Amino acid sequence: MRRVYNFSAGPAVLPVPVLERARDEMLDYRGCGMSVMEMSHRSKDYMAIIANAEALLRELMGIGEDYAVLFLQGGATLQFSMIPMNLIHDPATQTADYIMTGSWSEKAYAEAKKIFADVRQAASSKGVNYSRIPRQEELTLNPGAAYVHMTSNNTIFGTEYHHVPETGAVPLVADASSNILSRPVDVSRFGLIYAGAQKNLGPSGVTVVIVRKDLMGRNANMPVMLDYQAQAKEGSMLNTPPTYAIYILGLVLEWVKEQGGVAEMERRNIVKADKLYAAIDGSPFYACPTEPASRSRMNVPFTLARPELTDAFLAGAKAAGLVTLKGHRSVGGMRASIYNAMPEAGVDALIAFMREFERSNG
Amino acid sequence: MRRVYNFSAGPAVLPVPVLERARDEMLDYRGCGMSVMEMSHRSKDYMAIIANAEALLRELMGIGEDYAVLFLQGGATLQFSMIPMNLIHDPATQTADYIMTGSWSEKAYAEAKKIFADVRQAASSKGVNYSRIPRQEELTLNPGAAYVHMTSNNTIFGTEYHHVPETGAVPLVADASSNILSRPVDVSRFGLIYAGAQKNLGPSGVTVVIVRKDLMGRNANMPVMLDYQAQAKEGSMLNTPPTYAIYILGLVLEWVKEQGGVAEMERRNIVKADKLYAAIDGSPFYACPTEPASRSRMNVPFTLARPELTDAFLAGAKAAGLVTLKGHRSVGGMRASIYNAMPEAGVDALIAFMREFERSNG
Repeated sequence: MRRVYNFSAGPAVLPVPVLERARDEMLDYRGCGMSVMEMSHRSKDYMAIIANAEALLRELMGIGEDYAVLFLQGGATLQFSMIPMNLIHDPATQTADYIMTGSWSEKAYAEAKKIFADVRQAASSKGVNYSRIPRQEELTLNPGAAYVHMTSNNTIFGTEYHHVPETGAVPLVADASSNILSRPVDVSRFGLIYAGAQKNLGPSGVTVVIVRKDLMGRNANMPVMLDYQAQAKEGSMLNTPPTYAIYILGLVLEWVKEQGGVAEMERRNIVKADKLYAAIDGSPFYACPTEPASRSRMNVPFTLARPELTDAFLAGAKAAGLVTLKGHRSVGGMRASIYNAMPEAGVDALIAFMREFERSNG
Repeated sequence: MRRVYNFSAGPAVLPVPVLERARDEMLDYRGCGMSVMEMSHRSKDYMAIIANAEALLRELMGIGEDYAVLFLQGGATLQFSMIPMNLIHDPATQTADYIMTGSWSEKAYAEAKKIFADVRQAASSKGVNYSRIPRQEELTLNPGAAYVHMTSNNTIFGTEYHHVPETGAVPLVADASSNILSRPVDVSRFGLIYAGAQKNLGPSGVTVVIVRKDLMGRNANMPVMLDYQAQAKEGSMLNTPPTYAIYILGLVLEWVKEQGGVAEMERRNIVKADKLYAAIDGSPFYACPTEPASRSRMNVPFTLARPELTDAFLAGAKAAGLVTLKGHRSVGGMRASIYNAMPEAGVDALIAFMREFERSNG
């Protein structure tokens, strides 16, 4: 067996102890004689798995009892539709404000536009190729909006909010797919937080939705699978949930807790990101396109002063066991995604390779 | 490690060689240095996994190029809404016919009713507690309907279609969640076949939709995740698919092919079901509530002549390594789900236990 350092933006690296445990329990989960994949979702063993995952997430994030925690399917993209379907109860008169910080904000906005006409852009950094997060004073917020939507970290452009926008009484909704659990967050500042699991939480196929209970149940007669209230009432078991993905999510949450919780994740993520940005900024051979104050701790895009060497960089990195470093076509160059499960040793190995590549080609 | 015989209705037993392979590949998929769970869905390795799963399903089921094969999320329950959303283009004037054969038909019907008003029941066996499948001559079909919906196997009541209803030019839509791949099916007789994977195909969290291409794209401006056309255009990669569930699905399909394909699955399923029904019918101690001509090969409900012994039966069976045999509350008693992956030895063990229990308590 050989393991590489995998800098994929998602699905992404998972903690090795989580994978080892999943491997060891594959044919017989803790003496019950079957795989978690084979368990009835209504069985006592499985009910304990999903309850444990929810309890751990509540504990790690400090989620109050006034919030429901849902394990849904369809990724963040289905949430782009479910959020307006659930939070808007009068499509003819209500509005919502979207803060535009990249491709995912654009997709969220486009899907909301299909549900109701008056979706507004509270701010956008598109004019600077989404290289920074709009500041509070740049937001044009409508105090009568049903909600304000933000993307808390932007995987493609490598930017991240380092503050929580102030929206007054209007519920703040955050797509936290790519930085959930990477830093402490005051959940009470949000009406709804959602995240596809495949970056910081586990495998793809399960989407976490943390929603303030008073925001649910505003619309009757919705498709049952798309109704937060109906899902909450059944404890995410309205039908068969993605049982194995939730099991792995639970193992990841256990790992986060064992490591010291979200505060420790943040400490490590700052160390990793600071090192990597310093290596980029410290050499004219490398450059990072993002505004320093908006830089993401999760996704670090960088380019070469000699862009014709990009393919050689990627090939050399791969040969050194550093994979999935190709940048998104919107930005070009490289992108290193360094989520919770990326060890500091992986970042060190990348920096060592960058120095060696520069020495050979500089 | 200990393995039991797991008669769960779903999620259900998987082939042991599939679980062994998943275990062995958990930390390093075939030398690529990472788990399938950690792979970018756009990576070459993962693209090969999903393409292979689709190709195998097409081969095993004989699916023509005039059908799209989609790997979606949300289970059959989300399909209950997506089918009318996609197949009805004028909710004000169009109708659809639903053949009612149990709880899942009822749920499908209820969700369609939310999308458009004129949903009709072409037939129903509710009056006899869904103990049989309506015959062709009992169907009241509307030749102008947008589609006819059927549930090809009914997990709770233990009934199954052993014929394909004739619907003329009206597309036939089948929820085949609980008997897909258990017998050869002429796909060209159907407009759409859908199935949650967690019974005969793999783990929960992925839903297979096989849809005739001319039935897609009838409605513009749908939520993108709910639009068959949009999903087909992106090869089920409109967003991150449930990558690991699709990988396991592919391993199950490989196993089916190695065993001899769907025809061999049917042969084994007939052997298993015939044995079990014979054991039930052969003793006054046991009874099966379903009409013999409608009996399911997948889910076999049975009751005791002395129902007060049901708990003792279930406890004794569990002690003998025969688990998840409790019947659904709508039917009572026991239910043995004997999908493709249940070996004949499991059915033999159950029959032996039934004889022993009767001898001790008869």
